[in-house]
Amino acid sequence: MVVRRGKEEPVLRYFEDIEVGDVRELGQHEVSREEILRFAQEWDPQPFHVDEAVAEQSVFGGLTASSCHTYAVSSLIFSRNADRAATAAMLGLELSFPKPVRPGSVLTLCDACIEKRLSRSRPGFGVLKSRTALVDQERDEVFVMTSSYLVACRPGA
Amino acid sequence: MVVRRGKEEPVLRYFEDIEVGDVRELGQHEVSREEILRFAQEWDPQPFHVDEAVAEQSVFGGLTASSCHTYAVSSLIFSRNADRAATAAMLGLELSFPKPVRPGSVLTLCDACIEKRLSRSRPGFGVLKSRTALVDQERDEVFVMTSSYLVACRPGA
Repeated sequence: MVVRRGKEEPVLRYFEDIEVGDVRELGQHEVSREEILRFAQEWDPQPFHVDEAVAEQSVFGGLTASSCHTYAVSSLIFSRNADRAATAAMLGLELSFPKPVRPGSVLTLCDACIEKRLSRSRPGFGVLKSRTALVDQERDEVFVMTSSYLVACRPGA
Repeated sequence: MVVRRGKEEPVLRYFEDIEVGDVRELGQHEVSREEILRFAQEWDPQPFHVDEAVAEQSVFGGLTASSCHTYAVSSLIFSRNADRAATAAMLGLELSFPKPVRPGSVLTLCDACIEKRLSRSRPGFGVLKSRTALVDQERDEVFVMTSSYLVACRPGA
């Protein structure tokens, strides 16, 4: 990946800049009722995500964000971060949803690097493994992702 | 979950209606260039997802759908299906992305039930495990999800 550094582009963190054990908070996002309904209407229109009366009768007892929406929030916070990793491709991930995301949930993305190695197949890239969690305003985890992704090495390194 | 059967609501497939080994195609969706850019602008605005010039220089050599967008497409096809499972909650999932999704990819969702059991903690619900794949028009898998989710038993069963 060409990492551009024009005036709109932040300096990204390359493979060499990230160490196993690094833990960082990457930003926050508040999930509104309107956003939950809008995302679900477009991408996950199951009745308990788009109809508040049905949601009241669901196992959650009220409106909750679609699992895909919750993943999208983590993606959004990551991608907007000014000094995110210089990711090039997502390789695979495991997701769990220990607590529902409800209207008004304020989510903070916390990222911990748990493994790193150089890519065997792609010179100039490394593979990072992270444990990434969204925690709500009560500091409870609502989303936990373990992901492996390709990250660019520093050009010329 | 209350499963409604008004004129707008299809009859859903309950826990008892789904057997291990069942394999089904659930529907199709074509991913357009505009949709890739629009999803990424809102939820994953990394340069190689929102800027075609940067995408050309990426490891993919062109524009590709965000991993979250690909997951959203699987969610969309599932949720629009007239006789989908009566899901109540997503418990956890593993995702992999064996091939990039490019503009014009026509994706078909294929679902196979691989395990089922009654829920230990929630009477009236079962836990299903599925292997769900999106295959493109060349019948290559572009997305593979192994998921565990809560499904309602038939009312009164």
